[in-house]
Amino acid sequence: MVYDRMDDRPAFVGIPTFLHLPALADAEALQQEHPDAVIVGAPTDTAVTHRPGARFGPRAIRAASNLRRGSYHLGLGVQPFKLLRVFDYGDADVVPGDIERTNQAVRAKVGEVAKAGARPIVLGGDHSVTYPSVSAVAEALGRGRLGVVHFDAHADTANDSWGVLLSHGTPMRRLIESGAVPGRAFVQVGLRGYWPPPSVFDWMREQGMRWHTIHDIQRRGFEAVLTEAIEQALDGPDRIYLSVDIDVLDPAYAPGTGTPEPGGLTARELLQAVREVTLRTELAGADVVEVSPPYDAAGITAEVAHRVVMEILSALAAKRAEGGA
Amino acid sequence: MVYDRMDDRPAFVGIPTFLHLPALADAEALQQEHPDAVIVGAPTDTAVTHRPGARFGPRAIRAASNLRRGSYHLGLGVQPFKLLRVFDYGDADVVPGDIERTNQAVRAKVGEVAKAGARPIVLGGDHSVTYPSVSAVAEALGRGRLGVVHFDAHADTANDSWGVLLSHGTPMRRLIESGAVPGRAFVQVGLRGYWPPPSVFDWMREQGMRWHTIHDIQRRGFEAVLTEAIEQALDGPDRIYLSVDIDVLDPAYAPGTGTPEPGGLTARELLQAVREVTLRTELAGADVVEVSPPYDAAGITAEVAHRVVMEILSALAAKRAEGGA
Amino acid sequence: MVYDRMDDRPAFVGIPTFLHLPALADAEALQQEHPDAVIVGAPTDTAVTHRPGARFGPRAIRAASNLRRGSYHLGLGVQPFKLLRVFDYGDADVVPGDIERTNQAVRAKVGEVAKAGARPIVLGGDHSVTYPSVSAVAEALGRGRLGVVHFDAHADTANDSWGVLLSHGTPMRRLIESGAVPGRAFVQVGLRGYWPPPSVFDWMREQGMRWHTIHDIQRRGFEAVLTEAIEQALDGPDRIYLSVDIDVLDPAYAPGTGTPEPGGLTARELLQAVREVTLRTELAGADVVEVSPPYDAAGITAEVAHRVVMEILSALAAKRAEGGA
Amino acid sequence: MVYDRMDDRPAFVGIPTFLHLPALADAEALQQEHPDAVIVGAPTDTAVTHRPGARFGPRAIRAASNLRRGSYHLGLGVQPFKLLRVFDYGDADVVPGDIERTNQAVRAKVGEVAKAGARPIVLGGDHSVTYPSVSAVAEALGRGRLGVVHFDAHADTANDSWGVLLSHGTPMRRLIESGAVPGRAFVQVGLRGYWPPPSVFDWMREQGMRWHTIHDIQRRGFEAVLTEAIEQALDGPDRIYLSVDIDVLDPAYAPGTGTPEPGGLTARELLQAVREVTLRTELAGADVVEVSPPYDAAGITAEVAHRVVMEILSALAAKRAEGGA
Amino acid sequence: MVYDRMDDRPAFVGIPTFLHLPALADAEALQQEHPDAVIVGAPTDTAVTHRPGARFGPRAIRAASNLRRGSYHLGLGVQPFKLLRVFDYGDADVVPGDIERTNQAVRAKVGEVAKAGARPIVLGGDHSVTYPSVSAVAEALGRGRLGVVHFDAHADTANDSWGVLLSHGTPMRRLIESGAVPGRAFVQVGLRGYWPPPSVFDWMREQGMRWHTIHDIQRRGFEAVLTEAIEQALDGPDRIYLSVDIDVLDPAYAPGTGTPEPGGLTARELLQAVREVTLRTELAGADVVEVSPPYDAAGITAEVAHRVVMEILSALAAKRAEGGA
Amino acid sequence: MVYDRMDDRPAFVGIPTFLHLPALADAEALQQEHPDAVIVGAPTDTAVTHRPGARFGPRAIRAASNLRRGSYHLGLGVQPFKLLRVFDYGDADVVPGDIERTNQAVRAKVGEVAKAGARPIVLGGDHSVTYPSVSAVAEALGRGRLGVVHFDAHADTANDSWGVLLSHGTPMRRLIESGAVPGRAFVQVGLRGYWPPPSVFDWMREQGMRWHTIHDIQRRGFEAVLTEAIEQALDGPDRIYLSVDIDVLDPAYAPGTGTPEPGGLTARELLQAVREVTLRTELAGADVVEVSPPYDAAGITAEVAHRVVMEILSALAAKRAEGGA
Repeated sequence: MVYDRMDDRPAFVGIPTFLHLPALADAEALQQEHPDAVIVGAPTDTAVTHRPGARFGPRAIRAASNLRRGSYHLGLGVQPFKLLRVFDYGDADVVPGDIERTNQAVRAKVGEVAKAGARPIVLGGDHSVTYPSVSAVAEALGRGRLGVVHFDAHADTANDSWGVLLSHGTPMRRLIESGAVPGRAFVQVGLRGYWPPPSVFDWMREQGMRWHTIHDIQRRGFEAVLTEAIEQALDGPDRIYLSVDIDVLDPAYAPGTGTPEPGGLTARELLQAVREVTLRTELAGADVVEVSPPYDAAGITAEVAHRVVMEILSALAAKRAEGGA
Repeated sequence: MVYDRMDDRPAFVGIPTFLHLPALADAEALQQEHPDAVIVGAPTDTAVTHRPGARFGPRAIRAASNLRRGSYHLGLGVQPFKLLRVFDYGDADVVPGDIERTNQAVRAKVGEVAKAGARPIVLGGDHSVTYPSVSAVAEALGRGRLGVVHFDAHADTANDSWGVLLSHGTPMRRLIESGAVPGRAFVQVGLRGYWPPPSVFDWMREQGMRWHTIHDIQRRGFEAVLTEAIEQALDGPDRIYLSVDIDVLDPAYAPGTGTPEPGGLTARELLQAVREVTLRTELAGADVVEVSPPYDAAGITAEVAHRVVMEILSALAAKRAEGGA
Repeated sequence: MVYDRMDDRPAFVGIPTFLHLPALADAEALQQEHPDAVIVGAPTDTAVTHRPGARFGPRAIRAASNLRRGSYHLGLGVQPFKLLRVFDYGDADVVPGDIERTNQAVRAKVGEVAKAGARPIVLGGDHSVTYPSVSAVAEALGRGRLGVVHFDAHADTANDSWGVLLSHGTPMRRLIESGAVPGRAFVQVGLRGYWPPPSVFDWMREQGMRWHTIHDIQRRGFEAVLTEAIEQALDGPDRIYLSVDIDVLDPAYAPGTGTPEPGGLTARELLQAVREVTLRTELAGADVVEVSPPYDAAGITAEVAHRVVMEILSALAAKRAEGGA
Repeated sequence: MVYDRMDDRPAFVGIPTFLHLPALADAEALQQEHPDAVIVGAPTDTAVTHRPGARFGPRAIRAASNLRRGSYHLGLGVQPFKLLRVFDYGDADVVPGDIERTNQAVRAKVGEVAKAGARPIVLGGDHSVTYPSVSAVAEALGRGRLGVVHFDAHADTANDSWGVLLSHGTPMRRLIESGAVPGRAFVQVGLRGYWPPPSVFDWMREQGMRWHTIHDIQRRGFEAVLTEAIEQALDGPDRIYLSVDIDVLDPAYAPGTGTPEPGGLTARELLQAVREVTLRTELAGADVVEVSPPYDAAGITAEVAHRVVMEILSALAAKRAEGGA
Repeated sequence: MVYDRMDDRPAFVGIPTFLHLPALADAEALQQEHPDAVIVGAPTDTAVTHRPGARFGPRAIRAASNLRRGSYHLGLGVQPFKLLRVFDYGDADVVPGDIERTNQAVRAKVGEVAKAGARPIVLGGDHSVTYPSVSAVAEALGRGRLGVVHFDAHADTANDSWGVLLSHGTPMRRLIESGAVPGRAFVQVGLRGYWPPPSVFDWMREQGMRWHTIHDIQRRGFEAVLTEAIEQALDGPDRIYLSVDIDVLDPAYAPGTGTPEPGGLTARELLQAVREVTLRTELAGADVVEVSPPYDAAGITAEVAHRVVMEILSALAAKRAEGGA
Repeated sequence: MVYDRMDDRPAFVGIPTFLHLPALADAEALQQEHPDAVIVGAPTDTAVTHRPGARFGPRAIRAASNLRRGSYHLGLGVQPFKLLRVFDYGDADVVPGDIERTNQAVRAKVGEVAKAGARPIVLGGDHSVTYPSVSAVAEALGRGRLGVVHFDAHADTANDSWGVLLSHGTPMRRLIESGAVPGRAFVQVGLRGYWPPPSVFDWMREQGMRWHTIHDIQRRGFEAVLTEAIEQALDGPDRIYLSVDIDVLDPAYAPGTGTPEPGGLTARELLQAVREVTLRTELAGADVVEVSPPYDAAGITAEVAHRVVMEILSALAAKRAEGGA
């Protein structure tokens, strides 16, 4: 045989599941495999308000990187796939042009994973998928247990976008209004730019939401803000859903996205933050969204989104290695 | 003054209306100006089933080209803007993520133009905009007068796309079903590839639709097919709406589009066809759709879409010069 | 369920086998399924002499297109996947940097398909993969039965490229020298440009090879040359392997390739040619090679390569429908 | 009506003035509107010495961003367009290939704005436009009042570029030599790389110019250097013109520019600097130049240039809110 | 030694003269080598009126292609570099931003070549370089001997572009007005689109110029028009300068250019035309201009410009082989 | 004459040696010129395991930048080309597809430079070229004198890549195993991501290699790590070879590379590090590798690689100015 093991082949060889992880054919397989984490794609961009293209995000993130299954995290000193059972469950049955049915499809697919006791890791797609994804995880956990740590340039708490309620600018509001997650269980990091308007921040305050703008980060330093954010996240919920909108990064690091906002985080900061949130909380699910391949000339946005997933898995593995998770 | 006339300035100077044509501020202005033709943008791609981006089409088509207002059509020997009153009426009030309200907005905007007695020339946007646009023109003309000549790789006569009725794959069916235009008043040119399935062609036959595939063109020659298509178009209606999906061109000529289908027309063929349809029929309106700038590396798709509009205007001017139109 | 059938989902949904065809896990599955045709990727570009990138070709061709499994060929009037059993067998175990082992891997993988009685359709990868692929098919058929119809800008009959014997400029020579296919069983169409030198053409003549340059095509017309080429192909062998180097197309139609040569075929010509070769001969295997995604800005090269495969499958289906194949 | 207000529509809808701000038709309108700030484009690149394309800069900056008119600056807590009267006055009548007449056109257009008592905000174009723009502002203010804060990788104080006096490498020298602004009223931040030669720095020293290289910034920290630069700027003049060459940013943040120089500022640093200069001085005008769209694959350079303008306007608004400006 | 001969190395190895041809260090070397043809670059785009970038044209054309020095023209059956002495003389001393001195530099450099009795082959650069280049060749030949065959989408006979006399829209007028070449010695092929205005065509008629639009070509066929054009070219002058504006090609074939005009020639047509003009006339010089690399995503425009040069050299070699040239 | 000196011409004028430095025709010229430093290209990517394209690296790095020969380093206050004799020696005779002969060619070419007493500065090409390059320098110096400072995201100390021993993942291992440089004379900076596996790090430890991950840098600060790394480098060897894999930078700064790893250095950090290593040690040679132009949309990766070379030369010049080097 040419390669030592099939999971050791070059990244570009073979039909691309995430990191050549084994695919799960159906819900039954999902049940039988007892996974620790499961990749789910949500290839939709019907809900974007500016540059579309995120429907091709899951495919691009899966295809990114030259990593192989023997991957070893140099900072954490773990080989995640020796410690965790991770699978690729394909994509939700999204419907281009129909946000509502797309939401239902995401909710159903993520729900299957959550109910099987595994952590769903959702590859977006636009940020509208976080509403059904978090809803499904919260429902599987039972009321009042789930908090959300949310890295983003934008608060995504508008009531609507020109009347569209399930837009990518509204998922956090829908989650709060639907009761899936209370406002005080939200911590947002990286907000900047010129949106939403003051009235929305007023609403956020009323809900007890907490957030950290890039201006806070520049004033206080990233470490200090991150530490406080994690403490806030641990104040209440006992499980965390981590939602990473790739536009929390500066457009230099993530040009391939729909609503780029200059002045954002560096990749070093984001990867560190993802690692520490995962290490210090109990992760119940995660997503990385808003990767838009048509705007991603050299594929670097898909690469960093891919590493966000790897950082989550590595930190989960490190906890497992230490007897946790 | 630097330029002889402001409409003679370099194409990249100034806020880009189509060819620096005067903008119409509102419906009142539209009424007062008695235009011959009016540019209307329909910047939407919520209804696409594959590669999005056409929402940026109107802006790209307006910005394309180095032409100026003194433009002179070398083949027809006319300067269209010396003969015609043409204006840019801006864009319809589309709503990202909401196809239905987007359709209504297009219908309203095009309807204003048609009711003012002018020919709307719609810049898409995806092909879903043809349903409201043709509906508005047909309504303004009165029942039974309008036919459609349709250049496209795809018939766009499906019933739905995964349940979505107002998709970019269905506008021609909606037009027929709604009674706006009867099936026998449709002539399609350029169909190829692998869609729609046979059952849809059966339905088309039942409706009396006529079409010419690329295979017919290769067998019989483009001239012969074009001549027959124009004859068919004149058989019944006394006004024609010309709908040009830019993907009727081979992807070599129009890479910046959503569902490229290799093996299409050349730009020479399409421009000739547009010219002849306009010359030989009475045009009541037109659209050029499915230009997707994120996929249009050197902007050549926007250029050729721009020339489709110029070809229409030049042929209208030539008819005017000869005492027609 | 959201979609009527899983094979009807949007092209960008799900882990991309070719057209969402079922994957074959291993040689056993291959035997059991009795396929008519089998997709095999050969993701290598170690043997290219100019612009690399073809290692990403199979992935790009699989991901191209918005077609679905119900696809219906408008010219031939068939739905290939209703008539044929087609599967995706993944990629050969190529080794970046090692042409020899890559060749062996391609030969082994294609050999499995050919021995199972199915037609391999190989997605390159650079043209060096044709040597092992044709060798495997010829071996499975038994001596003297296989001819090669070869569309290309280049003859690929050099002895070596700076001493490299298994280069992408040499596969046809290796096939002849190894005895897999005799020179007189080769027909080449589309040669142009400035290579190889006269001494190589002398050798080709000695071997009895036949070829048609673009200059012949311009002088005599494409139809005439194609007809003659097919007649020549039928003179001797009873099975044909069709090798399509995408650079036989003009770079306008196939910019994403390694050694673009201006002045080539149009997509209409190539698709017609592929269709007719498949219809009029007995196809034992095929490849489409030299798609280099890093140079394929809007993905149009991958699209047309994808349609070459579709054209082959459709023509096979049409023969089946008529009682052949 | 579909949108609450027309200025709330999606960014890609409608003919693009900067942020859909109202356009000023002519000098009379300018007088009547009593604007606080006025956008003026200077679409020229005749004076560049390396990569051209900045002629398309104003159009790209206007089209960038998904922001709307209700925009709210998260760090400053202001909605600039609720506090300021801002208009788009279109472009200067530049002449491709003729730097001198282009300079005159910029000077005339900016002069109209300055004389109307408003702050011109010039969108370049190459850096040669700063000479006429600052000249016009200085003239309107009256002698000796204007200083220049200049963010750039390059000092732009050469005498000529191969004999061309009005090159983009010379505007600061022309301003000093012409007496528009004395050398001691210049503060430059971000210089780096390999230009100009020592003799030019000698001349700068003689003029009393002050500058801060990236090496100073790395040694002393950005905050310290920025604070000192602002103090220096306030030492003498009572009005400041802020000139931002986008290449002061590292090419990672601003790839779409003509003479990229690695090792530059981050977007966070630049936006903070622009904000603080505007807050702490009295701004009389500004420009952001050298955005070259042909080199701006994902449009991120136009985005950050757009935010430089937004940062200026927001800081002006914040001063207004506090009773200043 | 690794390669048989240095001129046989891979195209991307070594410092790129055109096809690794020997460089001429200075005018003395030029005299001593008695070249048949000499490559001269004219890297300027100061005179363009729309998309710039052609200053990088000579470098891109030199770097294009994977051809080597043993190159063999498959249609003509010659190896040009075995029959001709061809050298690369580097670039003219252009001055960015100064059209006049750039013109002088081109004229001086081309003049050296022409006076040495060799055929200059100029790589543009924008079309303004044709005025000094043809002037230099005409001067070296002596009065009244030189005609111009001109392939272009545009006549380039305007008096000025917004007052600029040496624009890329005016070279043919300057040549006629200066007396370098009389109007009746011009034949233009490929004109189309919307420029220049009728008054310019009137002037052209008065000068006795002859031209063939794309409309003529579509009506009469390319062969007929080409034959007539060559006859017209031979009617009077005994030497021909061939000027190829790459935008004579359809933008599908030449996206990387400054003023793309859809509906143009195919590469097959242009290469055939260049070959036949060279074969049937006595070529005294040539240029290929308006290649703009920033708009040339996959480099295909540089490739076809490179082949235009190769076609010229091959045809010259073929004439030499037959005892001519 | 147009320019003051030919080395002052615009960067895009003339056949591109590095910074228009004089070319060395052969080994004899190399001997006679007594250079301080010599540029050597190694245009190969046969040994890459993921995205190829680095074969075009030397050409792109040579063509990058708008710098001229009078260049003056603003931080160091030197004009390197007034102090040093630097030449461009062209490229090694690489063989596409044959790693072994390519290695030999690089070793031979670099060896000529090293034996002539000059410092080779190698432009890659992939990182496999460091094995022959360092070997040649070590051999010229004599046993035990050379250490390696290595900036990279990856340790490149694997035994093989799927059996390929001379891969770009193995050069440091080959150097140690061959005895060219002992393990304890290696210092690596910037390691991150997920490779190599623990067993390779065990081997590295056994060899006495020292390395600093990005995690160390984030924990301790870049300055501290850099200082320690330089001290380690000086502990033993008296000459240093500096190897810069451009992927040590974050992909934001270097998108055009083969195996991008998010979370890397900034350009400011890398340029400072290169400067300080050169200033504080005795440099015997250097390389900058893994620039892949097909993935380098706006050429910013080639720019920063170019500046790495400039930083080396400037620091060498600064030492010379101070009486060192």
